[in-house]
Amino acid sequence: MDIYYMNNVSVPWHRAVITVDQFARADIDEIFALAARLSVGRTMPLTGKSIVNLFYEPSTRTSSSFHAAMSRLGGSVIPINEVNYSSVTKGETLEDTIRTLESYTDAIVLRHYDEGATERAVSVASVPIINAGNGAGEHPTQALLDLYTIFKERGGIDGLNVTLMGDLKHGRTVHSLIKLLRMYDVKIRLVSPPELCLPKPYLCKGDTERINLESLIDDTDILYVTRVQKERFADELAIDISYSVTRSDMDRAKENLVLMHPLPRVGEIPTELDNDPRSAYFRQVRYGLHVRMALLVAMIGRD
Amino acid sequence: MDIYYMNNVSVPWHRAVITVDQFARADIDEIFALAARLSVGRTMPLTGKSIVNLFYEPSTRTSSSFHAAMSRLGGSVIPINEVNYSSVTKGETLEDTIRTLESYTDAIVLRHYDEGATERAVSVASVPIINAGNGAGEHPTQALLDLYTIFKERGGIDGLNVTLMGDLKHGRTVHSLIKLLRMYDVKIRLVSPPELCLPKPYLCKGDTERINLESLIDDTDILYVTRVQKERFADELAIDISYSVTRSDMDRAKENLVLMHPLPRVGEIPTELDNDPRSAYFRQVRYGLHVRMALLVAMIGRD
Amino acid sequence: MDIYYMNNVSVPWHRAVITVDQFARADIDEIFALAARLSVGRTMPLTGKSIVNLFYEPSTRTSSSFHAAMSRLGGSVIPINEVNYSSVTKGETLEDTIRTLESYTDAIVLRHYDEGATERAVSVASVPIINAGNGAGEHPTQALLDLYTIFKERGGIDGLNVTLMGDLKHGRTVHSLIKLLRMYDVKIRLVSPPELCLPKPYLCKGDTERINLESLIDDTDILYVTRVQKERFADELAIDISYSVTRSDMDRAKENLVLMHPLPRVGEIPTELDNDPRSAYFRQVRYGLHVRMALLVAMIGRD
Repeated sequence: MDIYYMNNVSVPWHRAVITVDQFARADIDEIFALAARLSVGRTMPLTGKSIVNLFYEPSTRTSSSFHAAMSRLGGSVIPINEVNYSSVTKGETLEDTIRTLESYTDAIVLRHYDEGATERAVSVASVPIINAGNGAGEHPTQALLDLYTIFKERGGIDGLNVTLMGDLKHGRTVHSLIKLLRMYDVKIRLVSPPELCLPKPYLCKGDTERINLESLIDDTDILYVTRVQKERFADELAIDISYSVTRSDMDRAKENLVLMHPLPRVGEIPTELDNDPRSAYFRQVRYGLHVRMALLVAMIGRD
Repeated sequence: MDIYYMNNVSVPWHRAVITVDQFARADIDEIFALAARLSVGRTMPLTGKSIVNLFYEPSTRTSSSFHAAMSRLGGSVIPINEVNYSSVTKGETLEDTIRTLESYTDAIVLRHYDEGATERAVSVASVPIINAGNGAGEHPTQALLDLYTIFKERGGIDGLNVTLMGDLKHGRTVHSLIKLLRMYDVKIRLVSPPELCLPKPYLCKGDTERINLESLIDDTDILYVTRVQKERFADELAIDISYSVTRSDMDRAKENLVLMHPLPRVGEIPTELDNDPRSAYFRQVRYGLHVRMALLVAMIGRD
Repeated sequence: MDIYYMNNVSVPWHRAVITVDQFARADIDEIFALAARLSVGRTMPLTGKSIVNLFYEPSTRTSSSFHAAMSRLGGSVIPINEVNYSSVTKGETLEDTIRTLESYTDAIVLRHYDEGATERAVSVASVPIINAGNGAGEHPTQALLDLYTIFKERGGIDGLNVTLMGDLKHGRTVHSLIKLLRMYDVKIRLVSPPELCLPKPYLCKGDTERINLESLIDDTDILYVTRVQKERFADELAIDISYSVTRSDMDRAKENLVLMHPLPRVGEIPTELDNDPRSAYFRQVRYGLHVRMALLVAMIGRD
């Protein structure tokens, strides 16, 4: 599914990163090779270039990652945070904001609370747009960095048993990652309380669903744990989710398990596991930097 | 009126951009030539230089434009936004803030809600100050970019019929632009409801005043439309201003009309006109970038 | 006291600036020499490097100073202000935030309202940490720049009479500066109302304490005046502190007096004294820039 259609027109990811649906395995190979190359040495191929970080929702984590990526590449960042409280808008439409800002920059990294925002931005923009989270929609650069983490930690993706645990219902990160994983020969296993299980559209025949980790930990290669994103619940749900990985789980797990988490964590992984070499969640942050560097170079590095 | 006096001392615009009154035609020629030159190629003459964006009022639009201009020139920006909610002040005077920040930077771009702020800043500063809007006062860089847009779109300014429409009473942008236009051989025509007409001090014999566009559209060369700046009204006025340019207006207008707007728009120009090649308001944004680059180079590019 | 122990492990200041206790006279000589060298010329030794300004408490003054220092050195800054209102946290611990951000940057400048924050950050960080104020604790870079100001203005520190005036109880700046001064052969004299006198742990035999400046002004070499930091009082104290330096004080003072203030001032020094060549408080700001440049180069300038 390497071509993404918007109003029946395909949008190549070099022009706009909207959804993981735009990436074929060959694209991912290209991005990962570039990320690995950029992670060493300090070339600055984006000197003189700039991006706008246009965040309608705050996300210091993601905006900092793009900021750091751009800085490492020699470029600069125009940060526009919490747009609604600022003067960008004064009642202005997203489309007009995009058409204004594109004069100032080589690409726009957009986070918006509205699922349709990315496509609206892309429909008017003449510079590349990168979706950095669109409401309940996608967060494709997070999914790419998650996949890159697996690739780097294990040397490949095919053949692995990937266990995803936590709130599988609301996590857009999980949904995007699962879409990417489907392109590879992996076994997907899902651990969540019934109220927070993976929505049907993302589920495939052959997936394993459980309400706890116990029967799956032994032969898991990748354990991807997610936070319950309480801020995305419509109501304050009273679901007691005490999912967490324990020392005892780790004792039973494979020697080469890779324990991942998109962060921030709020108890799903106790700090006593931080020194376990299999805990990859902080390395995951660094891999994210490299993947975003690769996307920026691929999208705006050519004149 | 190319010399601006502050306490009876003339202030050249290279040292501080306070008001459009500082610019003679020769100055404008110099700035426009520099803007045109900087708009092509990617030289970075301000590498190692920095500006402070000191905004006591939020204005993401203007601060982003200066940020982008500085980035394109190789320099860096220290953004200080919404000063009153930050710790700059702690009761500190503007003068002390300026004298503190000037140690850190090569120039200060100042937006302030108080009309007297720019002059107070200039009176103590040892680095160049650029007025990026001082309350109900001026916004000289906006006026310069508006004039530059006319110049670039039509190849010159003399001989044109310029129609300004909307809230002509409160718009400091319009006031500054009109002052600049007076230096050229142009006919100025004004369209507004009586409650929002151009204040007497800005009016000249020979100006045409109308309450609607109809009788003026046919031979208009430049149509400059402004937003009703509701945030600047003392009371919530109940004036119904439904001024907007229509497709039918455009059908009657000249082939080489230039339709301008300082943005953001809130209905004065419908989006269906965006694809009309005569709609110049987004190109205007880019011209603004180039004018600000020219000002920065002229003011801090020499050692 | 040139070695600082954290959990019984010494922390060299090149790795983390936590407290002034880490600096021996030889360290200070090194930093001051580097600061003087960096203050002239425009080499950019930190090109391609970046810092994160992680401010849990707002302090535009300090963050701008580090931002300017980094810009002057060719590096870039990822600003993260008012963290608590942003999304960094989402309940995340400081330790996790540090371990996330360290992937993005070469050093973290941390201001935090909690006195223990710096040490917690240092305990997990793999990049250098600079304490830019930790609650009621220390503000070591301010103390270093204060000392550097004395050094530059007078050519040396030994043998001087240093008078500190104002709120000597709450000012962490004063406490840190006094610690540094103890390493030199200086006479320390303290002027404050009894309610705001220097806490016992900082006091030494031989210090002179007064409730007004009168008897001390004549032979003072350095007069360091501080603001009453009302925002740090638990209750709104009703102490009337009308300490201020007057023209008459200056008339009696030495020809080569150095009048200092960490800024912002709120009346302690009237603006009529700004033109007195002995008023060094704005030069102090610039010395601060140079000291922070020196620290950054010393800490992250080596590969």
